[in-house]
Amino acid sequence: MNELIEQALNGRRRAIARLITQVENDPATAKQTIMKLFRNTGQAHIVGITGPPGSGKSTLVNELAKELRRRTRTVGIVAIDPSSPFTGGALLGDRVRMRDLAGDSGIFIRSMASRGSLGGLARATGDVVKILDASGFDVILIETVGAGQAEVDIARAGHSTLVIEAPGMGDEIQTIKAGILEIADILVVNKADRPGSNRTVKALKAMLMLGSGTVNQGHHGPKPVTDESAHNSGKLDDSWPVQVLETIATDGDGVKNLVDVIIAHKTYLQSSGEWKNREFARSKQEIGQILQTEFLDRLYDSVPLKEWEGLIASVAKREIDPYSAVDKLFARSVQNE
Amino acid sequence: MNELIEQALNGRRRAIARLITQVENDPATAKQTIMKLFRNTGQAHIVGITGPPGSGKSTLVNELAKELRRRTRTVGIVAIDPSSPFTGGALLGDRVRMRDLAGDSGIFIRSMASRGSLGGLARATGDVVKILDASGFDVILIETVGAGQAEVDIARAGHSTLVIEAPGMGDEIQTIKAGILEIADILVVNKADRPGSNRTVKALKAMLMLGSGTVNQGHHGPKPVTDESAHNSGKLDDSWPVQVLETIATDGDGVKNLVDVIIAHKTYLQSSGEWKNREFARSKQEIGQILQTEFLDRLYDSVPLKEWEGLIASVAKREIDPYSAVDKLFARSVQNE
Repeated sequence: MNELIEQALNGRRRAIARLITQVENDPATAKQTIMKLFRNTGQAHIVGITGPPGSGKSTLVNELAKELRRRTRTVGIVAIDPSSPFTGGALLGDRVRMRDLAGDSGIFIRSMASRGSLGGLARATGDVVKILDASGFDVILIETVGAGQAEVDIARAGHSTLVIEAPGMGDEIQTIKAGILEIADILVVNKADRPGSNRTVKALKAMLMLGSGTVNQGHHGPKPVTDESAHNSGKLDDSWPVQVLETIATDGDGVKNLVDVIIAHKTYLQSSGEWKNREFARSKQEIGQILQTEFLDRLYDSVPLKEWEGLIASVAKREIDPYSAVDKLFARSVQNE
Repeated sequence: MNELIEQALNGRRRAIARLITQVENDPATAKQTIMKLFRNTGQAHIVGITGPPGSGKSTLVNELAKELRRRTRTVGIVAIDPSSPFTGGALLGDRVRMRDLAGDSGIFIRSMASRGSLGGLARATGDVVKILDASGFDVILIETVGAGQAEVDIARAGHSTLVIEAPGMGDEIQTIKAGILEIADILVVNKADRPGSNRTVKALKAMLMLGSGTVNQGHHGPKPVTDESAHNSGKLDDSWPVQVLETIATDGDGVKNLVDVIIAHKTYLQSSGEWKNREFARSKQEIGQILQTEFLDRLYDSVPLKEWEGLIASVAKREIDPYSAVDKLFARSVQNE
């Protein structure tokens, strides 16, 4: 176990892969592993990439990885992959991707299934990112199928957040409808050779102006429910102008420029002190996630299965309400301490 | 407070609206309210409706509500609305909807913002559904922008789950890519007058056959991570054949048939005993959600803010790893009991 971690820290691919598998499958191993390698993290630039299905995220991520490699950066890719019993897990696109990037020891790709418990995926993703970070990858790209809250939260947990849009996917701009526009540090209109691309770029720019106006006027409109509003509005302040870039990932068009902007964003974060703020925000979020899962684990261990099932059945039969059921469980767990 | 609940239970609209607002804004009120009205729940048929942005969900939900009203069913609609500082919260489509259905006292519509803490939205949605259930609405439609895990989990938490697809939204079938096909009790191809509709229907049917084969062969391929796999595979067993229906929501085409199938699914659930299984699964999920949020609330109350911030800062600086930080918090909370 210790040997495996040491090998991973030395960048040995097979050790990294095995370690990730262990960490994904077993929370107890995850805890031991992260405790040991956490001090080696903190060097990587973590970039979250999200957008609606069909916006060409995977292809763009591939091209970003290739361009970063040309600049001698090593790249870790964590793809949150909505697996399904229908598709047999990994999607075809992923297998194409593997072939495209395989054989480059400076790139490490890991797909993770998104069908799981809510907190579990975020926890596991965080742990995998830490392993790649500690193993020395310079840039870590986290790709999620956006539009969903859990996936968006994962994408925004990095240092830089890219939101990908594509023209002509319907009547509206998808990212606006999905409410993820405001988390973007960089907006990308991919498939820019499609008709309607200019209109999409213009609409996004208009929304950005509207959005930053809203924030500057002191949070008119609905306030974000989370306590991360400071983090959000930080993204909209004058010091980092959110740009709208066009790419055609299938041809590699615009990818060099996009990488320039991603690197510029890192420089901005570090020189402005915002890097530290985001590290603080991420640490806070991580502690919250670990707290929740650890608490539930401890509770499941301490309450016998029969009692659990009896309580759930009582709620299902409306003999007791779920809040009172939880009160009972708390009372019980305090007794056990 | 008690009076407000009583008025809501008697179906008074203004009381229902006020109660929902209180419950959304204040977890403590939510708890008191649900404890009081929980015994009055359990009558409504809860239908989750999800699908990718652009599939025409909102229009279809409107038409479903109208058709159910023609059959003298009262309808509650809970729309999980990805709000954004850019759009000013409720989307234009929602305002159109309001105008369309307003003035019918047998319909109650509530939009909820999806940007919030992970567990929070599910908790709040569950509470709002309970209020509508206890207030006597016969059918409750929960509409979520699918593709995301949290939203999909909310949609599947009902008795019946509809997954909406539309043809021609790109190269692939969106619901397959998003991995939400397998949660469907009923599949709907909306916008069926668009080119490519037949192809989409055929592809979905082929995936269904593939999927049920997979399940019958004993979970080949990736296993669902959650313990809800029984719930999933139950949906695929021989007793309820998942159908693929076509609708053109803007014209109301196919909506009558869809309502027939929704009602048939309720009959199936009740006669097969599956209704009870799903009530059990939902109760379990709810207890888990409430446990998590209550636990965190208690912890936040018991640990001074300065200590919190100090611990988070230590993690951000890599002085301590997040798992050890959580161990410290647990040790502290036990001391305090």
